[in-house]
Amino acid sequence: MSKATVVIAYILLIAGIATAQPGERPAYALVVHGGAGAISKDMPDSIEANYRAGLNAALDAGEAVLASGGAAEDAVVAAIVVLENDPLFNAGRGAVLNAEGAAELDVSLMRGSDKACGAAAAIRTVKNPITLARAIMERSPHVFFAAEGAERFAEASGLEIVDPEYFVTERRREAWRRREAEDAKGTVGAVALDRDGNLAAGTSTGGTSFKTPGRVGDSPVIGAGTYADNATCAVSSTGHGELFIRNVVAFRIAALMAFANLSLDDAANEVVRKLLAPGDGGVIAVDARGNVATPFNTEGMFRGAAIAGNERTIAIWNP
Amino acid sequence: MSKATVVIAYILLIAGIATAQPGERPAYALVVHGGAGAISKDMPDSIEANYRAGLNAALDAGEAVLASGGAAEDAVVAAIVVLENDPLFNAGRGAVLNAEGAAELDVSLMRGSDKACGAAAAIRTVKNPITLARAIMERSPHVFFAAEGAERFAEASGLEIVDPEYFVTERRREAWRRREAEDAKGTVGAVALDRDGNLAAGTSTGGTSFKTPGRVGDSPVIGAGTYADNATCAVSSTGHGELFIRNVVAFRIAALMAFANLSLDDAANEVVRKLLAPGDGGVIAVDARGNVATPFNTEGMFRGAAIAGNERTIAIWNP
Repeated sequence: MSKATVVIAYILLIAGIATAQPGERPAYALVVHGGAGAISKDMPDSIEANYRAGLNAALDAGEAVLASGGAAEDAVVAAIVVLENDPLFNAGRGAVLNAEGAAELDVSLMRGSDKACGAAAAIRTVKNPITLARAIMERSPHVFFAAEGAERFAEASGLEIVDPEYFVTERRREAWRRREAEDAKGTVGAVALDRDGNLAAGTSTGGTSFKTPGRVGDSPVIGAGTYADNATCAVSSTGHGELFIRNVVAFRIAALMAFANLSLDDAANEVVRKLLAPGDGGVIAVDARGNVATPFNTEGMFRGAAIAGNERTIAIWNP
Repeated sequence: MSKATVVIAYILLIAGIATAQPGERPAYALVVHGGAGAISKDMPDSIEANYRAGLNAALDAGEAVLASGGAAEDAVVAAIVVLENDPLFNAGRGAVLNAEGAAELDVSLMRGSDKACGAAAAIRTVKNPITLARAIMERSPHVFFAAEGAERFAEASGLEIVDPEYFVTERRREAWRRREAEDAKGTVGAVALDRDGNLAAGTSTGGTSFKTPGRVGDSPVIGAGTYADNATCAVSSTGHGELFIRNVVAFRIAALMAFANLSLDDAANEVVRKLLAPGDGGVIAVDARGNVATPFNTEGMFRGAAIAGNERTIAIWNP
């Protein structure tokens, strides 16, 4: 490596962004996020370490799938299950509570090879919502289910059903009792490129705290919260869901690549830094060449990337 | 008018498509649809007349708003309310029934001036779902509600609530008893351009007959079933909802205009005739210059247009 290359590689390492060289497609790539928002840099070291450990565990689970030749959607599901089970993140157990003090979860999954997808909104009893998204994608002629109907489909599919109280942690209950509106940060998502060159994306969330029951955010909306198409990219969004719905954020990035010939990085930045406003949120994205983009316009975004042949990166703030 | 112009005008009239001349923006434009699908040309004249009368009444209601200087979204709501109340169409009263014999309704509305929107899925008790979409758009910080939460928002907003049996007509009950799967045709929608140059789009449906309870189609999905942005166009979709979700049909048309510089007609045809397959469905669309496109790849699509300065058109099949 030339000195300049070393310097550039070091800058990229510092930036927490692993970027494939043009033309060199990595064998696989996995990016996860744990939400974007007003994440204070004054966070205690012990809490920051827990977030980093959670992201790392999700990358471990997803990378194990990809390294052994598994499918992108299986890696996305494996990574998101870890984040759903981790009470730190606003998805699955530890989700924020709605106006009635209950967790109501939104989720979606999409596969880039055939644009198959599965999504569910306002669910209260399915232990791992991302597994419901996969069951809908694989076993139903439909792609999107709401509320009770989604839960009944989960039961019929043999997924693990839990009491709604399972999702409620003491920390979230306490915040709810104190009427502390929590930042929407903590939505989780993953995007992956597998050894076969296929893409997938998934997103799972508890939405916004104190939301009106039945409110659906962008996470289960294909095109807004999640999108994947081998021809362009896989995207998972996190942020102010209403704005992501009306701007069709995830598909807009794919459309800028397909119709305006932008690179993944330019397309993702065009949407997150130019169309959206500071504080709105961020996305993680990967294209079929293994290029990765993780722009956000908030204070921070919990994120991590495991790209074959590159050092693993975990980051929260901008450098 | 030259003889050639007369001939062209006559062909356009026959085709049931009213097209503004380049540069001449009509004062307003309204297009409605009553669904695309396998609509047999052998339909009895009396039934065909009823469909035409329904579309005509919807155009009357919407055009009255536009002619008097009202807003595009008010015209869209006025037109769709008429179609929801007409038992012939698969929206509101007369919706098809799900696997349990109940009507479950999906709806959305979007305004092009600020991309504000409102949507609801799997509702069973709101007499005119499109009025719920408007209430969500105007009065909630959220844009999308599912099932019971949506119904509670409707009640709190003072909308008319009905017994779920209100929606069930004898004709639909009989079809359900006989296990006759009905074509998804009959979804309704409207797009409008008002005197101020603002666009709006809305879509309302009972979805597919014998659907699994909780199934959500494309109609309430902003970007798939409905999209409106003054910078490009307003679109309402009808057809195989799952395909419209995964292809983000409504926004894709807008994106082809914005990012690939296609005309409305070319963008709509690119999606409906090239990306989608025969039998999938159709769209109605209007742009900010008053150009209208109504492509479909099914046997027929119930549709009508009222464009200032043009003869009103109602059509079902291709000429």
